[in-house]
Amino acid sequence: MKKSDIVGQIINARALREPVQARGAAFAPTNIALCKYWGKRDTELNLPMTSSLSVALPGKGSHTVLTLRGANDDRVILNGKTLPADSAFVKRLCDFLDLFREKKSWHLQVDITMNIPVAAGLASSACGFASLVSALNDLFGWALPARELSILARLGSGSASRSLWNGFVMWHAGARPDGMDSYAEPLKAEWRDMRVGILSIATREKPVSSREAMRQTVETSLLYARWPETVARDMLLLKSALQDKNFSLLGRTAESNALTMHATLLSSWPPVCYHLPETIAAMHKIWDMRREGEEIYFTQDAGPNLKLLFLEKDTDRIVERFPEAEIISLSI
Amino acid sequence: MKKSDIVGQIINARALREPVQARGAAFAPTNIALCKYWGKRDTELNLPMTSSLSVALPGKGSHTVLTLRGANDDRVILNGKTLPADSAFVKRLCDFLDLFREKKSWHLQVDITMNIPVAAGLASSACGFASLVSALNDLFGWALPARELSILARLGSGSASRSLWNGFVMWHAGARPDGMDSYAEPLKAEWRDMRVGILSIATREKPVSSREAMRQTVETSLLYARWPETVARDMLLLKSALQDKNFSLLGRTAESNALTMHATLLSSWPPVCYHLPETIAAMHKIWDMRREGEEIYFTQDAGPNLKLLFLEKDTDRIVERFPEAEIISLSI
Repeated sequence: MKKSDIVGQIINARALREPVQARGAAFAPTNIALCKYWGKRDTELNLPMTSSLSVALPGKGSHTVLTLRGANDDRVILNGKTLPADSAFVKRLCDFLDLFREKKSWHLQVDITMNIPVAAGLASSACGFASLVSALNDLFGWALPARELSILARLGSGSASRSLWNGFVMWHAGARPDGMDSYAEPLKAEWRDMRVGILSIATREKPVSSREAMRQTVETSLLYARWPETVARDMLLLKSALQDKNFSLLGRTAESNALTMHATLLSSWPPVCYHLPETIAAMHKIWDMRREGEEIYFTQDAGPNLKLLFLEKDTDRIVERFPEAEIISLSI
Repeated sequence: MKKSDIVGQIINARALREPVQARGAAFAPTNIALCKYWGKRDTELNLPMTSSLSVALPGKGSHTVLTLRGANDDRVILNGKTLPADSAFVKRLCDFLDLFREKKSWHLQVDITMNIPVAAGLASSACGFASLVSALNDLFGWALPARELSILARLGSGSASRSLWNGFVMWHAGARPDGMDSYAEPLKAEWRDMRVGILSIATREKPVSSREAMRQTVETSLLYARWPETVARDMLLLKSALQDKNFSLLGRTAESNALTMHATLLSSWPPVCYHLPETIAAMHKIWDMRREGEEIYFTQDAGPNLKLLFLEKDTDRIVERFPEAEIISLSI
């Protein structure tokens, strides 16, 4: 099945393929998975092997402004800088826009402003595609329900399906070949005194894309066969932690889930190791702090940076040990 | 089943429980596993979940001299220094000696000289127990076949079963509850132009013993369930590499096997991470060199140090990049 078939199912029915206004805009927060999306069952539709669960970082993400353009091509501006038309980023974005237009009937200026580093394992493609889809929804007057926006965002980047809400979000793996049951939705859970500390170790573009690393893991890691069981266990533990406000359980489940994801990467061939020496140094520091009784955990996506997880009451001591961390409050 | 039952099966039959001479001595080389021993099916008898395959480092290891002592206790001297009687090392060694004596009928001075760091993931317990068992064989005049020495050495430390020979050695997992089919034997393979480079990153004692780390992995890592399949694949690949003198195949199989072992450690809880920042820096350097076309691989045991694997013809270039590595020739 092709992406365009899915777009057809969602959009064609509404016959809304032409912009209804000259400008559309939307913001989407980036999200940090506590139980990771790792491995696809369908690479065309970005259908995942397993469900996943994330928390949004309020105010950190991508703001996209779309304006109709009287020209024969799209123009993409990232953080105020026009990107070359032949760059991989622009190509991927225009391919996505093509899903929504026939015969290049319109062109857009796409202004993206991100307040997180791009392609460094900080979910820039997640908030990027989520804000793009929401801005298209605005521009075209689709008024689509969030569930359908989530499906459209997924076609751009899997984890973008989770970036349409603040708070805790679950992406259901689904089982249908067309993925119409593979969407995210917010969980009825709040945790205002939880904090995320972004520990930026390297913000340069990563050497292996998540997309490529995921493919390689699924194809070559013998350990990957146990990833679905890992997720099944961790989803239950996380839901229980959210329900009981059991922070230790949430922290260790998220940390173990991230380490297990990286374990499958290390066991693939050629090995994929997103850790830098500084990543390992920070992990040992966190483990030392835990041995001293501090309630601090981490998670790590497909990049060298860590995201610290802790509670508001411990902020001062944690900032003292990690003065470089950017602390993000989950209360909005 | 208890260790003493096994010793009884091997030694009692020969009724050789008293020393026949005043002094016994033996050297045993340390060994580097190319396919790791990771996980026990019997913790008392050190019976492994899987077979494993190693290469000995000629001349690097442990030399043990045993002398009868007219006193009521044993004395253990490591590299010229008498160890406190209540240290864990002495306790473990005396417990092992107790397997061979009834009612403390004799006592020994145990002089161990090791030319590798102790308990730093360089298989000090492997060559230590192998040389101890061989020295006892000498002292008692047992004249045991190597297979039985291998079983006795295993009772001291699993990987010691592989440290009785130079060259490539395979330890058969065996299936019997008494482990009488779980012994090592040398492989008919030679590779005189292979080199091992020991990259000592930290030689202090490791924070978590292999024994404890192994137990924790088997009990808590969901990924560990796939370790037997990993070993089955890697043993076939290694045997094929040895037969065809296919160094690339040997190198990548050994490296992938080690990374997969560490992957299971990272996915256990609490996570066990033997990597130090310098370990990761060295790995990235090796991967960079491979991308430049160099045939260099690594393996890593339960510690932060790496063992480089390469061919004699490439030594100069590799020493230039890793001047701190201690290069060991496999030709004897």
